[in-house]
Amino acid sequence: MGTHTAPRPHVVIVGAGFGGLIAAQSLADAPVDVTVVDRSNHHLFQPLLYQVATAGLSPAEIAAPVRAVLADQHNARVLLADVVGVDTEKRVVKLGGDGGPGELKYDFLVMATGARNNYFGHDAWAEHALGLKTIDDAVEIRRRVLLAYEAAERETDAERRKQLLTFVVIGGGPTGVEMSGALAELSRHVLAKDFRSISPKATRVVLIEAGPRVLGGFDETLSEKATVALRSMGVDVWVQAMVTDIGPGFVQLGGDRLTCSVVVWAAGVMASELTESLNVPLDRGKRVLVEPDCSIPGHPEVFCVGDMTSFLHTEDKKPLPGVSPVAMQQARHVAQMVVNTLRKEPRSPFRYLDKGSMATIGRSQAVMELGPIKMDGFLAWLAWLFVHVWYLIGYRNRFVVMLTWAWSYFTYQRGARLITGQRVMPSVKALTSAPRPAALPKEAEKPVARA
Amino acid sequence: MGTHTAPRPHVVIVGAGFGGLIAAQSLADAPVDVTVVDRSNHHLFQPLLYQVATAGLSPAEIAAPVRAVLADQHNARVLLADVVGVDTEKRVVKLGGDGGPGELKYDFLVMATGARNNYFGHDAWAEHALGLKTIDDAVEIRRRVLLAYEAAERETDAERRKQLLTFVVIGGGPTGVEMSGALAELSRHVLAKDFRSISPKATRVVLIEAGPRVLGGFDETLSEKATVALRSMGVDVWVQAMVTDIGPGFVQLGGDRLTCSVVVWAAGVMASELTESLNVPLDRGKRVLVEPDCSIPGHPEVFCVGDMTSFLHTEDKKPLPGVSPVAMQQARHVAQMVVNTLRKEPRSPFRYLDKGSMATIGRSQAVMELGPIKMDGFLAWLAWLFVHVWYLIGYRNRFVVMLTWAWSYFTYQRGARLITGQRVMPSVKALTSAPRPAALPKEAEKPVARA
Repeated sequence: MGTHTAPRPHVVIVGAGFGGLIAAQSLADAPVDVTVVDRSNHHLFQPLLYQVATAGLSPAEIAAPVRAVLADQHNARVLLADVVGVDTEKRVVKLGGDGGPGELKYDFLVMATGARNNYFGHDAWAEHALGLKTIDDAVEIRRRVLLAYEAAERETDAERRKQLLTFVVIGGGPTGVEMSGALAELSRHVLAKDFRSISPKATRVVLIEAGPRVLGGFDETLSEKATVALRSMGVDVWVQAMVTDIGPGFVQLGGDRLTCSVVVWAAGVMASELTESLNVPLDRGKRVLVEPDCSIPGHPEVFCVGDMTSFLHTEDKKPLPGVSPVAMQQARHVAQMVVNTLRKEPRSPFRYLDKGSMATIGRSQAVMELGPIKMDGFLAWLAWLFVHVWYLIGYRNRFVVMLTWAWSYFTYQRGARLITGQRVMPSVKALTSAPRPAALPKEAEKPVARA
Repeated sequence: MGTHTAPRPHVVIVGAGFGGLIAAQSLADAPVDVTVVDRSNHHLFQPLLYQVATAGLSPAEIAAPVRAVLADQHNARVLLADVVGVDTEKRVVKLGGDGGPGELKYDFLVMATGARNNYFGHDAWAEHALGLKTIDDAVEIRRRVLLAYEAAERETDAERRKQLLTFVVIGGGPTGVEMSGALAELSRHVLAKDFRSISPKATRVVLIEAGPRVLGGFDETLSEKATVALRSMGVDVWVQAMVTDIGPGFVQLGGDRLTCSVVVWAAGVMASELTESLNVPLDRGKRVLVEPDCSIPGHPEVFCVGDMTSFLHTEDKKPLPGVSPVAMQQARHVAQMVVNTLRKEPRSPFRYLDKGSMATIGRSQAVMELGPIKMDGFLAWLAWLFVHVWYLIGYRNRFVVMLTWAWSYFTYQRGARLITGQRVMPSVKALTSAPRPAALPKEAEKPVARA
């Protein structure tokens, strides 16, 4: 640093998810200076976030400090800041938030800001139906679930106890399937012995899917297998069920009201709000309709990768799915495009190499699909396990996560059952605020209400 | 359960710290029903809380769900509830808080509610100088420290950057020594490579002690050794320094003002607020002056153990220290007193068997003292390590903590460097809210301001 006289081109990367980090790392040997900006200080392994939400893993086990990941990459620096907009004419990224205003000039820009929950116009639902996007989300869902069990343990009214132990997951994609399976396991195995007044097996987990089947992106036979597995674990799977309202302690489905304590939103995502400041065509989910080389129309120096983009497959014109392999492959491609531009070499269109899809349902149960290959059961679960541990960033995390899972697998225990933080929980309050007997009745000490 | 006709005596234990948990476990074979009430769902290994505050360990590694700990003890149940008072005449514990009002009747009561921070009348300081009592405290300190580094990385003014990297620990007891040592290590080893614009080695850690030496409860030679070790790690040790005010971004010491970003309070504790509702004599720190058998005056069915008590040693009339061995030994004693009472056997006075004291200063550095034996350096550190891992509750936690430490020891990395949560940080805001240049200056990329 400081030995070259002409400044090197500055590549600003917004977002330190799979796309952003891989883009930065792919530029390690390029003659550029890289700045990675993220509003959080850690790269998060989102595919395992449901494990944090269900007390299986600790937050630090699926997250790595961005600075630590890039510490040895000498042409990269990391900035913790909120990006509030992009001016593609002036070629600056605008910073804001707690760190105060600021600007970052760029020569190349890689946007990799991912997705946020899409409540399809019902933003008021967000408070009651948390999505699974950040560590704070996952810790809050964990807190709500564990608090619901604690409230049920104190509850003397059988009907209200049942409602406290009703958890609803909205959306039957991989996240919804994984979350509802993990919730069912938590109650049937992990908590079974720990409560006296309630039987945690009395937990009711309802998975609500608007379409005709869960795992709609998979082959129909695998959807069927997943449904059977979920039902055998005690999950109520409702398909073609339309959520019309969500409030404190309830989910409304047309004329039916489902009273419950915790609602998890896994029904849809849209691109992060930053795509609007790029002034380019977006799809209905606010995703950027990128050019074949992943740049944006009219600005070959600006690239978008991952969940915030809509990339149409050249063959069948179907958009690529919002999964991490797409983000990582696009990131490598745009890093190459930056290098090509500096070398005055032509650009090439991005081609996606399908790595297949997988979803875990629970202990020893998963489904996977790669082209004509379809797999389920224990082998699919092992494959899921190894792929997910392999892609975790940080050797220590890989090792600790393997260890934690091995321990959970053999003991049916989970290590991260912590209730922390102080946020109020309106649904439990709504369900338990009615007056109750002065003392805990003795008969409440016996297990009741087995499923 | 349910096979006996006459109800068994009900022992209510308030608090699931060292005292409360050991009391419950010591009653496993007694002919009583035990209810453990705590406002948090986990037993916390407080001696390692400073490790969470400095990103060395994850919260779940030093905490165990109370329910899981007592799951196999069939005469015990666990209640997550806020205890708001005790009526020793009616023999009821009053519940309140989020779970709504309620009462718990008892035949025997064991109070083990521990200590809270004592700001000696300056409660307004609490917001700026966090104590180390709960996981939320530790995570918030970790967040503040890591955010201060991030703000310093963006800061272009050298003076403000220095202030952002000034951390103050108030109180030179074991907690203060451990905390300041760990903060110094965090900056010198862990973060050294990760920042570009700042040198984390420029961090200034100031340990402020009002008395003439740190570790006042230890032998003078050990205080001296700890001071030398702390100074060699870069900690400013100030003794006979009186804090007169604390606000956002500063600590006032008489006429001197120390500008800083993070303040940790380790200067003193007092008993939890519940001791006042017992209507018995308290000491200046609101601690219950217990009888020789650890019961309270006039109520032989009510016991108090641990940090909330002041137990005068029969020999020298000095109060016992607020350490976990006292709480655990008292807990075993009161469990025996309950059994004695049921058997109509006489009670005996509690006798404390001194297990010695230890404090760690940093990597390979600790001091310990047991009667005439005094030790420091690597051997004391090994002893400290094994004692602390040994007493951790949960096999998995012991194993994971050993592993995490071994990993940290050899790699100089810490696994839990997460900034989570949304609380504002007034001190950083006060230090960085002034206007700054529009772009990050290029020269800021070189390391500056080495200590």
